[in-house]
Amino acid sequence: MSTPTNPSFDVAHLGHVEIYSDKFDESLDFFTSVYGLKLSAMDEHSAYLRAWDDYEFCTLKLTKSSTTGVGHIGYRVASPEALERRIATIEASGYKTHGWVDGDLSHGRAYRFEDPFGHIFELYWDTNRAPNDDPAALKNMASRFTGVPPRRIDHVNLLAEDVSVFRDFMETCLGSRVTEMIQLDNGRIGGCWFTVNNKTYDLACTEEHGRGHGRFHHVTYATDQREDILRAADLFLEAGVHIETGPHKHAIQGTFFLYVWEPAGNRVELANAGARLILAPDWEPIVWSETERKRGQAWGLNTIETFHTHGTPPVKEAT
Amino acid sequence: MSTPTNPSFDVAHLGHVEIYSDKFDESLDFFTSVYGLKLSAMDEHSAYLRAWDDYEFCTLKLTKSSTTGVGHIGYRVASPEALERRIATIEASGYKTHGWVDGDLSHGRAYRFEDPFGHIFELYWDTNRAPNDDPAALKNMASRFTGVPPRRIDHVNLLAEDVSVFRDFMETCLGSRVTEMIQLDNGRIGGCWFTVNNKTYDLACTEEHGRGHGRFHHVTYATDQREDILRAADLFLEAGVHIETGPHKHAIQGTFFLYVWEPAGNRVELANAGARLILAPDWEPIVWSETERKRGQAWGLNTIETFHTHGTPPVKEAT
Amino acid sequence: MSTPTNPSFDVAHLGHVEIYSDKFDESLDFFTSVYGLKLSAMDEHSAYLRAWDDYEFCTLKLTKSSTTGVGHIGYRVASPEALERRIATIEASGYKTHGWVDGDLSHGRAYRFEDPFGHIFELYWDTNRAPNDDPAALKNMASRFTGVPPRRIDHVNLLAEDVSVFRDFMETCLGSRVTEMIQLDNGRIGGCWFTVNNKTYDLACTEEHGRGHGRFHHVTYATDQREDILRAADLFLEAGVHIETGPHKHAIQGTFFLYVWEPAGNRVELANAGARLILAPDWEPIVWSETERKRGQAWGLNTIETFHTHGTPPVKEAT
Amino acid sequence: MSTPTNPSFDVAHLGHVEIYSDKFDESLDFFTSVYGLKLSAMDEHSAYLRAWDDYEFCTLKLTKSSTTGVGHIGYRVASPEALERRIATIEASGYKTHGWVDGDLSHGRAYRFEDPFGHIFELYWDTNRAPNDDPAALKNMASRFTGVPPRRIDHVNLLAEDVSVFRDFMETCLGSRVTEMIQLDNGRIGGCWFTVNNKTYDLACTEEHGRGHGRFHHVTYATDQREDILRAADLFLEAGVHIETGPHKHAIQGTFFLYVWEPAGNRVELANAGARLILAPDWEPIVWSETERKRGQAWGLNTIETFHTHGTPPVKEAT
Repeated sequence: MSTPTNPSFDVAHLGHVEIYSDKFDESLDFFTSVYGLKLSAMDEHSAYLRAWDDYEFCTLKLTKSSTTGVGHIGYRVASPEALERRIATIEASGYKTHGWVDGDLSHGRAYRFEDPFGHIFELYWDTNRAPNDDPAALKNMASRFTGVPPRRIDHVNLLAEDVSVFRDFMETCLGSRVTEMIQLDNGRIGGCWFTVNNKTYDLACTEEHGRGHGRFHHVTYATDQREDILRAADLFLEAGVHIETGPHKHAIQGTFFLYVWEPAGNRVELANAGARLILAPDWEPIVWSETERKRGQAWGLNTIETFHTHGTPPVKEAT
Repeated sequence: MSTPTNPSFDVAHLGHVEIYSDKFDESLDFFTSVYGLKLSAMDEHSAYLRAWDDYEFCTLKLTKSSTTGVGHIGYRVASPEALERRIATIEASGYKTHGWVDGDLSHGRAYRFEDPFGHIFELYWDTNRAPNDDPAALKNMASRFTGVPPRRIDHVNLLAEDVSVFRDFMETCLGSRVTEMIQLDNGRIGGCWFTVNNKTYDLACTEEHGRGHGRFHHVTYATDQREDILRAADLFLEAGVHIETGPHKHAIQGTFFLYVWEPAGNRVELANAGARLILAPDWEPIVWSETERKRGQAWGLNTIETFHTHGTPPVKEAT
Repeated sequence: MSTPTNPSFDVAHLGHVEIYSDKFDESLDFFTSVYGLKLSAMDEHSAYLRAWDDYEFCTLKLTKSSTTGVGHIGYRVASPEALERRIATIEASGYKTHGWVDGDLSHGRAYRFEDPFGHIFELYWDTNRAPNDDPAALKNMASRFTGVPPRRIDHVNLLAEDVSVFRDFMETCLGSRVTEMIQLDNGRIGGCWFTVNNKTYDLACTEEHGRGHGRFHHVTYATDQREDILRAADLFLEAGVHIETGPHKHAIQGTFFLYVWEPAGNRVELANAGARLILAPDWEPIVWSETERKRGQAWGLNTIETFHTHGTPPVKEAT
Repeated sequence: MSTPTNPSFDVAHLGHVEIYSDKFDESLDFFTSVYGLKLSAMDEHSAYLRAWDDYEFCTLKLTKSSTTGVGHIGYRVASPEALERRIATIEASGYKTHGWVDGDLSHGRAYRFEDPFGHIFELYWDTNRAPNDDPAALKNMASRFTGVPPRRIDHVNLLAEDVSVFRDFMETCLGSRVTEMIQLDNGRIGGCWFTVNNKTYDLACTEEHGRGHGRFHHVTYATDQREDILRAADLFLEAGVHIETGPHKHAIQGTFFLYVWEPAGNRVELANAGARLILAPDWEPIVWSETERKRGQAWGLNTIETFHTHGTPPVKEAT
């Protein structure tokens, strides 16, 4: 007899990711002129960016910093009541909490808490909509289509020293369910893919191999078609962007992908999942063995070495 | 202040559609050899079909009949408890109920009820998985990829004499939310698109203009890419299938589409939504005016006349 | 026994088309900002435009005028000697000649002549290359890829009162061969597609139905993929461009197409031929009957009425 | 002043490639059931295969053998007179000739000659058309479209110990022109791409690094779209075919590619060139330096080691 494994439904979707840049102007130029995000607004410290069909004001908050990496990860909840329920659960869980913080240009107050590896999460209900200053020809789109690949934010990938521990955190605090995972021969979980809704994943966590802490692996936007990614590859090439790997198809989740590094070194992905969704309420996590992983990506591409080692911020070498 | 409009979450997803054919052998050949569904099994009355990434045993039940049209529409619930909650709500609603029916080759017992226009719905929890007789190379796919366009069932479209009345039914019985709709100048709703999850729609209802009752407009499978639909158009052409309209892009929902008629006359669609999902928990229905609709489809294609008049079964002319 | 029908090889390829605009600034903005051509240079009367992989300085010469339509059509020859041979043939043919004209910013001197319907053609050898001011990342591309659909000029379509007469002109003066044609029931040729090389066509001529003379039907640029055209359709929609018909697939030549009108009213196409080429040296023209044409385009789209009537310049109504 | 470098035009196009298989039945099953060629006919020794839009009876002749590799390469000439001219040139050149050979099921008599590395070429005029037993819905296609990627033969790649010497052979005997080439730091040519028409290349030659002689690197069919190749990759994966490298984009020629090995070990490619053609009559060969080549493929993929070493037949190790 199958068991319902649906998420709690209290958390609606991944809302935004804040990333740090120590080359803010270059990073901003990359995200707006090359990668294809829209600039909703700027304040003293940050640029508020979104894709053309993101309904919220900001899905990528780019913040000036002395380093790189992830600032925080925001999930929007399903209702004010759902937010209350989540906070009660989180506070009862024993995970580190920061409590309420004021909002910013993009959303209202948010409740912050922290995973055991130092990544800061927030939940919020009150949000601001994408500016209506460039309305689309079709009223069911959030903003005017400008021909660029990113349609909406898709997922974020974080590094953790112990993915099992991270998994407990996600299941407890966000009510996420695991859709796919890597089971290493040494008994550890090599990677884990989570979702709070019907998307195949909105957050992935892979094992930290670089002695970093609280590090960021990448943020990803979804494209409508695989062709959008092939075309983007040519544009990245023309713009002199570092293409790390792809385009190719992931074995895990079957996503068509392309990874590049923005000027400050943070990894950014474009991805297309086709029509794949997780609709089954009793979905059983797909477990990949280490042997299976060694076959490489779906069509045989070997995973490039930097994909296992490069995270942001860079790890300071011990002296 | 926005209002949460999330669905009830009690209903997980559209599970299957039963359609009738008075040319069963030709219809079956179309669905398996041209359209590209897999045959899970057959019994005396029906063929149980699925797409290559449908996780359930059957998403299209093709049943021998003296006529055409829709047999019933099945939705899978999120849990056994959710099913109990739904039944209580339906029974309290006053809509016509048929009660429990035995399952078939594809799923366990189901609870049946009826909309005011004669379409039969069922909710069920116990289901059978897609046969494992042709496993895919990648273990996260339900069945072996055979190169055909339909990846999974997407939605069904029904005709109703009063779409407002149908809307009440869907909101009450399934906890569906409306994502887009057409508001006619005469005050009536011309069409309404519903979802129980993050898909942009899993069921659409358009106004019956042919004096039929309980009729069927079409069933749709999702493809991974728009290119799959262009390629399918060439295959339909080679196979002598009646291509009604498309490929083109809907203004409503932005879906790339192609409509054909299977040999018995039931309309079948292939569609691609790109990366579009309804993630906002406070999504406001998009309302299209009659004037806006008269602009045609997204890129200006005029909606073909038969699209407004052809439903199944055909309406018997009064003598 | 098949007969070689190869073109003369004296003429290498369609080089450029000059079109007139009575809304020059708007037309120029359309071609550079929406359609996606690069501006090589401007002089007092004209803008010299090219696609990102056109090797010549100009493939579309946009000229200020009091009206619309086509100025002249330029073909580049295979060698200086080939040019001499062609001129001898043309002068012996009795068709109207204009003799040598000076070049412009885009090419050296050219020899001009005229078809019986008033369209002016020119042949030339000396040409200027695309400016090297925005080199591509890959040295085998003519210019930097900017993400826009037009890769290179593809073909031009002209209107003629008698397509048979026009065909004689093309075969005699350019050594073109006919790849496909429409044979009307009344014995007339409804349309004829010509090529001087391995492209399926570089010039098409269709029957004038609007009592015009020397009119222009459209000019077309080739895209790398069909997806480029679907994406362009969304951009035309956003830009408020009049989309006349498409995207769809032509039955004749099998080309995937999209037709729009630039601001002054000249029709412009984007097209993708896939991998189709005319390689057979004894290719027999494909002849389409009137009955076959009535089936519409490849996937059943009815040809829109304006496609038969709209040419540029508009025909002045008799008083 | 540019110099015309057009091909001689005596040779119309690459016609067919004969490859040997020591696993004939498995190879035939691969080409017909997985790769997607049509079987025109079989005789005692060979299967005559073609793609759905190849106009000739056979473009791939698969021949039973005790080994693998290439049997011969056939080019069709532009006319019977062109064939006479070519033979005169070849016979005057001093290259080894085999003289006339009888035709086979696919074409009439052919004139055979040999390059200095043991590859056998033939030129022919009389040819047989693709069987008309499965006519396409559209009369301008050679055969019925069956949904498979290969549309027409594209090119063949051979290995030679000295590419410079091979280049002389191609220019002399076929009148081919060089479109791109690799200039190694040691003064040798690492690879050379040739064409006799407007295709970007119909034959490539790369340096033999495995001490073989007269070896075969791969044969390639063209697809209409890049998406056809992505889809094919999934089908190769399902069929257990060895995917060597790709899908990715070549820096040289800009072709989107996918390489697999058929069961006997011969390398087979699917490729898409987009709208790229060589139209310039004075095209200057693009010369890639060794440094430029070390940047890998267009989007940074490192060329896989076997691509440099694997040819057919395998080289017998010295004892």
